[in-house]
Amino acid sequence: MGRIGKHSFILKRRPHIISSASFVGDKEGKGPLGSYFDTICKDDTLGLPSWEQAESRMFESSVRLALAKFDAQSSDLSCMMGGDLLNQIISAGFAAREIRAPFIGLYGACSTISEGIMIGSMLVDGGYMDMVASAASSHFSSAERQYRYPLEMGVQSTPTCQRTVTGAGCVIIKDSANIDRDYPFNNIVITGGTVGSVEDYGITDANNMGAAMAPAAAETICTHFRDFGTSPKDYDRIFTGDLGKFGSDMLYELCRSQGYDISSRHDDCGKLMFDDDQNVHCGGSGCGCAATVLSSYILPMIERRELKRILFLATGAMLSPVSSLQGESIPSIAHAIVIEHTEGIG
Amino acid sequence: MGRIGKHSFILKRRPHIISSASFVGDKEGKGPLGSYFDTICKDDTLGLPSWEQAESRMFESSVRLALAKFDAQSSDLSCMMGGDLLNQIISAGFAAREIRAPFIGLYGACSTISEGIMIGSMLVDGGYMDMVASAASSHFSSAERQYRYPLEMGVQSTPTCQRTVTGAGCVIIKDSANIDRDYPFNNIVITGGTVGSVEDYGITDANNMGAAMAPAAAETICTHFRDFGTSPKDYDRIFTGDLGKFGSDMLYELCRSQGYDISSRHDDCGKLMFDDDQNVHCGGSGCGCAATVLSSYILPMIERRELKRILFLATGAMLSPVSSLQGESIPSIAHAIVIEHTEGIG
Repeated sequence: MGRIGKHSFILKRRPHIISSASFVGDKEGKGPLGSYFDTICKDDTLGLPSWEQAESRMFESSVRLALAKFDAQSSDLSCMMGGDLLNQIISAGFAAREIRAPFIGLYGACSTISEGIMIGSMLVDGGYMDMVASAASSHFSSAERQYRYPLEMGVQSTPTCQRTVTGAGCVIIKDSANIDRDYPFNNIVITGGTVGSVEDYGITDANNMGAAMAPAAAETICTHFRDFGTSPKDYDRIFTGDLGKFGSDMLYELCRSQGYDISSRHDDCGKLMFDDDQNVHCGGSGCGCAATVLSSYILPMIERRELKRILFLATGAMLSPVSSLQGESIPSIAHAIVIEHTEGIG
Repeated sequence: MGRIGKHSFILKRRPHIISSASFVGDKEGKGPLGSYFDTICKDDTLGLPSWEQAESRMFESSVRLALAKFDAQSSDLSCMMGGDLLNQIISAGFAAREIRAPFIGLYGACSTISEGIMIGSMLVDGGYMDMVASAASSHFSSAERQYRYPLEMGVQSTPTCQRTVTGAGCVIIKDSANIDRDYPFNNIVITGGTVGSVEDYGITDANNMGAAMAPAAAETICTHFRDFGTSPKDYDRIFTGDLGKFGSDMLYELCRSQGYDISSRHDDCGKLMFDDDQNVHCGGSGCGCAATVLSSYILPMIERRELKRILFLATGAMLSPVSSLQGESIPSIAHAIVIEHTEGIG
C-alpha cells in the first residue's frame, strides 16, 4: 500500500520528473537566480491588455516550454493540474483553455506547486495517468491590486512584507514504466510526501505572511519525519516556498520545540529569489516563487546529483481580502514531497 | 493499469461511498427535494456575523454530519478535499482549519464535487489514502455579492439566470479492502470516470451559465462514451450539475451532433432543486447544488438499487468578475464519475 504513518504516502513506482520550465519577470531576472530561469520578460504585461492576461500567458508558456524541451505537445499530457492566486484561479483556467489538456484546478495559495506535484505523482504512480504537468503562477501587479492596493497608490510596504514573485513554473511528471528515451531530466524521481493540514496560530497581519505560514510548514515537516522515521540529516536540503527571513527563523524555533533542528539544512525559495539590495524586505512570495525556483534552480541540482534527496514544501496562506476585513486570522497549509536522484542518497 | 481511453480512468478496487450529508438553506428546503436533505436552516446566516462565515460553517457541518452518521470523527479521515465559489476558497479553507484533517484545496467552480470525488476515489483506489471526505459548498448571498451585485440593490435577474444554491454536501469515500462493518451506505461503489478539459464556445453573458457550461458537459460525456465503449443506454441516469433548463436543451443538441441521444436518460441537479413556482428562472446553480442533490437524493437511490449505474458530472464555469469585465468569454469544465450499485447493472 502507498500509505505510511498518519498523513504520508510512498510512491513505490517512483514517478520521474522529466522536464520543467520557468518564466519570470524583470526584477526576478535581476536577482541571484536570474541565470537559471528559462525566460525573463522585460515588460510584465507581455504586451497584453492586462496583468491578469499576462499572468495566464506566463502560466501557459511555462507548460508549453517544459513540453517543448523534449519535443512533446499538450496533447501528450494525461492531465494538467495547477492554480494561482487570482480569484477563481483565472490564470490557470484560461491557460487550460489554450492548452486543451484535461485540467484539474487546485487552490492552495502559495502551496499550489507542492499540491499539484503531490497529487500528480500519486495519480501517475497509481497508473491512472501517464504524463502530468503541474504548474503554478503569480504576478506582482495582479496580486497587489487584488490583495492590497492599486499599484498607482504607491503604498509603502512594511518591514515584514514579502514581494509577490512575477513568474510561472511547470514540472512534468511521467510514469517510470514508460521512460523510453532521453529527457531533459533523466535522474529525478518523486518517492513520497506528506499531506498538510490547515494550521492557524492567530496571526492577523496580512503583511506578515511568513509568520502566518511557518506553523503549517513546521507541522508538516515534523509529521513527515515521524511518519517516515527520518530526521533532518536524511535530506540534503529542506526547501520551503516563501516563508522569507522572519518566517524561516520562526520555522526553526517551531521545529526545535518538536525536537528537530533543521536550521543548517534549510533554504527558503523566497529568500533565494532576491538580493538584499533589491528592496524586497523579507523576500519573495506567491505561487510562482516556489514553482520557478524548483523548476529552474533546485531540479537541475538534483539531476546533477549535487543534491541527492530533498524535502520540498511550498507554503500557502489561505486568506482572502474579505476574510481579513471580517476580522479572521490567517490559516495556512504546506504539503511536502520527497524528490530524489535515481541513485538515492547512499 | 487504471487508464482507459484518452482521458479516462478505471478503479479496479472499486472504492465505496459509505456516507454522505447535506446542509441547505430555507428556499432549497422548500423545493421538491426538501424532505431528502439532512439539515435545513431557516436563517441563512446561521446566526453568524457574515454569510461567508455561515457558508464555511455549512461546509464544516456537512463533513461532520457525514462522519457522525457512522460514529466517525474528523481524525479518522486520511484527507478532506473540496472547495467552493468564494475567492481563495475561504469556505473550504476555514472549514479545514476547524476539521483539522489533511486538506487538499480544489477549485473547479461548480464542478468541484465531481473533481473532489474523482481525485479522492483515485487516491483511495491506489492505496494512498484509506478514507477521504469530498465536499463542496455555495451560498446565494455570498455568491451574489461577489459575482453580481449587493443583494440590497434588488437587481432583477434575467430569464436565463439560475439561482446559486445555499448548501453544502459531503461524500465519504473508503477503501473497499477496509469495509469492516455497517455503514450508512453499504452498496455504492465508484468504478471510473473521465477528466474534463476546459471548453469555451465564446459565451460572454454571465447570466447564461447553462449555455457556457453545456459544451464542457457534452465534451466530457461523449469522450467518456468513446473511452469506455459505452453509450447512454449503459447508464440508468446521467446527472449533470447545474446546466438548468436552457443548458440541458443545449447539451442534448451537442451530444446528438456527436451521435449520442441522452435526452431520455438525463437529469440536471439544477432543475431538480427548485419548483417552477419558486421564481428561480432556469434552476439552481453553485457548487452546493450538485453536491447536495448527489448526497441526499441520488446516492440513496443507488443504495436502494433504484439506480444501478449512473454517470455523474458537475459542471463549472471558470470565470471571475475581473475576467468578465476584461471582456473574456466564459470557459467551463466538467468531470465525470461512474457510480454503481455493488451488484452492478446486470
